[in-house]
Amino acid sequence: MTTPHHPSRDEIELVDVLAALGHPIRLQVARALSSETECVCGDLVPDVSRSTMTTHWRALRESGVTWERPEGRKIYLKLRREDLDARFPGLLDSVLAGEPSDA
Amino acid sequence: MTTPHHPSRDEIELVDVLAALGHPIRLQVARALSSETECVCGDLVPDVSRSTMTTHWRALRESGVTWERPEGRKIYLKLRREDLDARFPGLLDSVLAGEPSDA
Repeated sequence: MTTPHHPSRDEIELVDVLAALGHPIRLQVARALSSETECVCGDLVPDVSRSTMTTHWRALRESGVTWERPEGRKIYLKLRREDLDARFPGLLDSVLAGEPSDA
Repeated sequence: MTTPHHPSRDEIELVDVLAALGHPIRLQVARALSSETECVCGDLVPDVSRSTMTTHWRALRESGVTWERPEGRKIYLKLRREDLDARFPGLLDSVLAGEPSDA
């Protein structure tokens, strides 16, 4: 499996990041990833169908929020914290500090 | 004209705010409002149709990002900065500090 396209740090746009995080499931994923170095995609939101989650993984990846690393049949996911902090200082911290009940 | 519904401060949800700001026009409006106390709706994005803007004003109001005050035939709009800062410290500052080219 080849590595899917990811925007470079400079290509990450604020409006895309906000739109990606402005969905309950994707916000939940970002929060789950914030406490882990790397997660296997399917383990993060077990109750949601694979096709639905595929759409959400793509939205997170294409906006620059996450990095996907395929390995065998699994896809590992991590938050692009350094890139996001460099592009939009304080944004991720303020989002992740928001009340979990909002997700 | 009666005042339209606005969520109370406690009702403002992070995911709704992110979704509202995760659109180029609405992000542009939030930025324009950040430097003004209050604006007349129609003056902010003159090149967009009234019906399109009505949808965007509603998304901003219902998420808790803006406050609308009708006066005669005009609607005045302002950013709910205090409420947003209280609910999600640092969020609005980091969003408004993002590069204007992103909008």
